[in-house]
Amino acid sequence: MEKTKRYMLAESEIPRRWYNIQAEMPNKPLPPIHPATKQPLSPEDLFPIFAEELSRQELNQEDAWIEIPEEVREKYKFYRSTPLVRAYALEEALGTPAHIYFKNESVSPMGSHKLNSAIPQAYYCKQEGVKNVTTETGAGQWGASLAYAAKMFGLEAAVYQVKISYEQKPYRKSIMQTFGAQVTPSPSMSTRAGKDILTRTPNHQGSLGTAISEAVELAQTTPDCKYTLGSVLSHVTLHQTVIGLEAEKQMEMAGEYPDVVIACFGGGSNFGGLAFPFMRHNFTGERQTRFIAAEPESCPKLTRGKFMYDFGDEAGYTPLLPMFTLGHNFRPANIHAGGLRYHGAGVIVSQLLKDGMMEAVDIPQLESFEAGTLFARTEGIIPAPESCHAIAATIREALKAKETGEEKVILFNLSGHGLIDMASYDKYFAGDLQNHTISDAEIAASLQS
Amino acid sequence: MEKTKRYMLAESEIPRRWYNIQAEMPNKPLPPIHPATKQPLSPEDLFPIFAEELSRQELNQEDAWIEIPEEVREKYKFYRSTPLVRAYALEEALGTPAHIYFKNESVSPMGSHKLNSAIPQAYYCKQEGVKNVTTETGAGQWGASLAYAAKMFGLEAAVYQVKISYEQKPYRKSIMQTFGAQVTPSPSMSTRAGKDILTRTPNHQGSLGTAISEAVELAQTTPDCKYTLGSVLSHVTLHQTVIGLEAEKQMEMAGEYPDVVIACFGGGSNFGGLAFPFMRHNFTGERQTRFIAAEPESCPKLTRGKFMYDFGDEAGYTPLLPMFTLGHNFRPANIHAGGLRYHGAGVIVSQLLKDGMMEAVDIPQLESFEAGTLFARTEGIIPAPESCHAIAATIREALKAKETGEEKVILFNLSGHGLIDMASYDKYFAGDLQNHTISDAEIAASLQS
Repeated sequence: MEKTKRYMLAESEIPRRWYNIQAEMPNKPLPPIHPATKQPLSPEDLFPIFAEELSRQELNQEDAWIEIPEEVREKYKFYRSTPLVRAYALEEALGTPAHIYFKNESVSPMGSHKLNSAIPQAYYCKQEGVKNVTTETGAGQWGASLAYAAKMFGLEAAVYQVKISYEQKPYRKSIMQTFGAQVTPSPSMSTRAGKDILTRTPNHQGSLGTAISEAVELAQTTPDCKYTLGSVLSHVTLHQTVIGLEAEKQMEMAGEYPDVVIACFGGGSNFGGLAFPFMRHNFTGERQTRFIAAEPESCPKLTRGKFMYDFGDEAGYTPLLPMFTLGHNFRPANIHAGGLRYHGAGVIVSQLLKDGMMEAVDIPQLESFEAGTLFARTEGIIPAPESCHAIAATIREALKAKETGEEKVILFNLSGHGLIDMASYDKYFAGDLQNHTISDAEIAASLQS
Repeated sequence: MEKTKRYMLAESEIPRRWYNIQAEMPNKPLPPIHPATKQPLSPEDLFPIFAEELSRQELNQEDAWIEIPEEVREKYKFYRSTPLVRAYALEEALGTPAHIYFKNESVSPMGSHKLNSAIPQAYYCKQEGVKNVTTETGAGQWGASLAYAAKMFGLEAAVYQVKISYEQKPYRKSIMQTFGAQVTPSPSMSTRAGKDILTRTPNHQGSLGTAISEAVELAQTTPDCKYTLGSVLSHVTLHQTVIGLEAEKQMEMAGEYPDVVIACFGGGSNFGGLAFPFMRHNFTGERQTRFIAAEPESCPKLTRGKFMYDFGDEAGYTPLLPMFTLGHNFRPANIHAGGLRYHGAGVIVSQLLKDGMMEAVDIPQLESFEAGTLFARTEGIIPAPESCHAIAATIREALKAKETGEEKVILFNLSGHGLIDMASYDKYFAGDLQNHTISDAEIAASLQS
């Protein structure tokens, strides 16, 4: 009997509905609060910034299943289903009895899971007569995906890219430009928010927080322009559940069910996208799967942050969100996993973590690259620095299973490949990377600022 | 009825045999000739350079089907089958009645078709007790694939990379190093061949010809070391037929058969890999498919070269091969499609072209990038500069079909993605690229040198 390595779905089995965990989680997230009125937000409050349908999805706590529009599903077919892969070679290298599976989102043409939400966001904007979309991007995965999705639907795209990433990863900027997007390093002098930040901190290297401020300001001050976001918000994670819904069917094809589900964690969309469809079976008591979010040691909002209302951006333009945060002024170290350099966690994940429905671990930078290199040399795919964190957490669990002799089934999300992040690997091999630990005092200071 | 965009095969349907066109083509290729003895080569003559099984495959004109070893097939499962995709969005942009399909080899973890031959080459070396493999690489796609395949089978790899590509595409070098390979820019001072070339031409930018000379020399002077090649030779193309054999089954799933099959052309392996399995039905008279090799205008061996015996490398270390060539001293312009910068064509393709079984077109550099950009903006995948040539030839055919109103079925090979070639796209968008035409006199001079 031949061993199967990759499981694929027929196009007709690509999900037709996203899973909205807000409708079924034991305790609903607290409401986002309007910073001026201090009142809970309504969808209408979000209309000036986001497409209306996306605003409604953001706050929808009623409907567990949301129809995927047919035009979105047609675009998903450009690269979905993505493979579910059994990592036999990694298992063998670790000598673990664990069965390791990964969902390979790196096969998307943009190299990551981000397109799953870029497509519907661009689609709904187009439907509502929007002409321009704007966004922020860190490592550039999201910006590239939005640029392409905008092109698909005939929209113009303007992207603020975190300055340090703009400089470290020039190819991502080139990819966005290939799709016709306009790319600006953030903080920039093109917005009031950018100018304010640069005045306070002249050499600011940028963060997702600064770039969000600039993009939101552009959307608010430009006609027919909406803001879009690549993570953190609940509607983004909703779209990403296409990952977990596919994975569920594919695990069934493999005749297994995960004991542990792992994903790296920046704002929460790739984590929630994979985890939430499985988590619903924990709510009913049918399963007791463990869910582990792997965040960088240098940006430990889940493991060491505080649950409180905080802004989503550095300038304080967004609603106040109830979340685990390091403070919206937290300035993360310049680690190479640019997509994980964000001070807060999405409201759904924050509530789930508070309620003990999931766990979090923090991964030092060097451990993440060590894990990524082992994965590359066994499974052949060079992982994005972000995904390396999920791999490191997976290896920890696989080695625990080796100690106990348990045949654990571990599923992780390979959120993206690292082919455009080779400069980071070069530095790792040259011994030029280091870990970035932060002290309790630093976190406390950031939370108070 | 939903339109299907991508066709995938179950793992059990990944081919179990490669197709050896040498056994069935109307006129066999003339034999390679030993440069010293002037006698036709026997497999034994190749044993000092290549693994023995690969040497036998190279000259096998008897067996139309060669078993794919089970261990190779297991490694193919890491990324195969690759999708066959209907390019609806490109068709729409062109307004053509043609049905355009592409075989997407860019989803391989190394980003191109090259792994299809790297895996069996490393496998046979391992089987025969070889410890080290060496090779040349242009754009780096082949070198990266060999580096990974060597790591899979526990071999050491040393890669000579064409100097201009080494400098233009530093990420490819980093990828090879991630898999533990040693990479040297060619021409180098580490071999006699390299020293000779650099003495004659101090600023030589390198070519596949110089890098082959250096790698062959290393293999000949190092114990337990064999040379491997990424294209040109018949055994490489044999392995690549896994592409066309899959595509044949997938076209059947789509309920169509190609009228035209197109691939870019460097040494011939991605072209032959896609084309040969279809071409066998032309031999029987069952089909009259057209086959078009798309070469760069700056390196036009098929359209403007001469059919003659010539060396495969610049230093004259290889056997004399009967092929269309521009002369082994031909120095191609520094175009960005590094993988197409080779002076000759494989012996099988050369014979087929001579016999009118296939056609060739030459594509100017600017037309190739224009085509690649349109493809990216419609189908979402940024193609490798090499693959852009196939796309340009496809667009020419699709526009002809538009003129005549024919519902032609066109199938082309997307041999690789361009995510690591973004610097080339940057230059294209900045207007810094140009066409490189060459005169008849230049070609004549090169053929006589």
